[in-house]
Amino acid sequence: MIVLGLDPGLATTGYGLIKEEKGKIELVDYGCIKTKAEDSHVARLLSLYEGFEALLQEGKPDAVALEKLFFNQNTKTALQVGEARGVIMLGIAKKKKPLFEYTPLQVKQAVTGYGRASKQQIQRMVKNILNLPRVPTPDDAADALAVAICQCHFHNFETTLETALERDTLIR
Amino acid sequence: MIVLGLDPGLATTGYGLIKEEKGKIELVDYGCIKTKAEDSHVARLLSLYEGFEALLQEGKPDAVALEKLFFNQNTKTALQVGEARGVIMLGIAKKKKPLFEYTPLQVKQAVTGYGRASKQQIQRMVKNILNLPRVPTPDDAADALAVAICQCHFHNFETTLETALERDTLIR
Repeated sequence: MIVLGLDPGLATTGYGLIKEEKGKIELVDYGCIKTKAEDSHVARLLSLYEGFEALLQEGKPDAVALEKLFFNQNTKTALQVGEARGVIMLGIAKKKKPLFEYTPLQVKQAVTGYGRASKQQIQRMVKNILNLPRVPTPDDAADALAVAICQCHFHNFETTLETALERDTLIR
Repeated sequence: MIVLGLDPGLATTGYGLIKEEKGKIELVDYGCIKTKAEDSHVARLLSLYEGFEALLQEGKPDAVALEKLFFNQNTKTALQVGEARGVIMLGIAKKKKPLFEYTPLQVKQAVTGYGRASKQQIQRMVKNILNLPRVPTPDDAADALAVAICQCHFHNFETTLETALERDTLIR
């Protein structure tokens, strides 16, 4: 099963593709869809949509995972992130991909086993779980990989994650 | 010139199509694109997108107008409205339609000549400007018509609007 995790935004949408086979997960690809600041607002949304369509076409994920968002204050940011999410969700609906959403707490717990883990702790665990030489950058891509790992976790791959957690404990 | 005004939302997107010819504006159509509460979130976004595609196809607008949004508090609403707007803006970008955005103040001033007009005053003026037998309903459609009228106003049809304003003064 191939899982696509996403961290949507108008300027930068992070993505992480991972593959699960017989309880083992491995990295397929990660990166960002970027849109140009000099383009008009609607042109950027179109460019995001087309980039995402290409990603779905090439990555052929069986499931897509997003983080549920909670904003405390900035409604302007919420509106803009909403626009990017709307475009992403439309692409998911068009390709009839199953979509899963997880709270930040669920992502933290799935990746680190600890609900109050810091951003750095999550990123280090993403690196360890996927056996990467270094922490993936930028943050948007690392966040997207964390959501993809969370999706695998919630589909009963706890064993793999526990092994990775033990490994992390040893090298800490 | 045909102008399409919109008031986007996930559950209900109001639309108003008006035609301007030689300084005169008249109603073409108005109504709502509705999505089903029982459908999944992404299915509703897809349904909104498809409804909007059909509207663009049938209405053949030369320009599309939206109200610029300002939220004071509710970030959850902002996120959801953003998702609907993202899908609408994608449709506009795909069809390469010129998009115009107006502040609530601009819409009020264009429609009633008064920046602090109430919702009721705006709706009555929409009715008068378009020579309708009654105030258009629901509110989302009336709001969409007001934005479409604003778009015409900002393209130099002040004369028509002033005539309508005078008419309103007489029958008040």
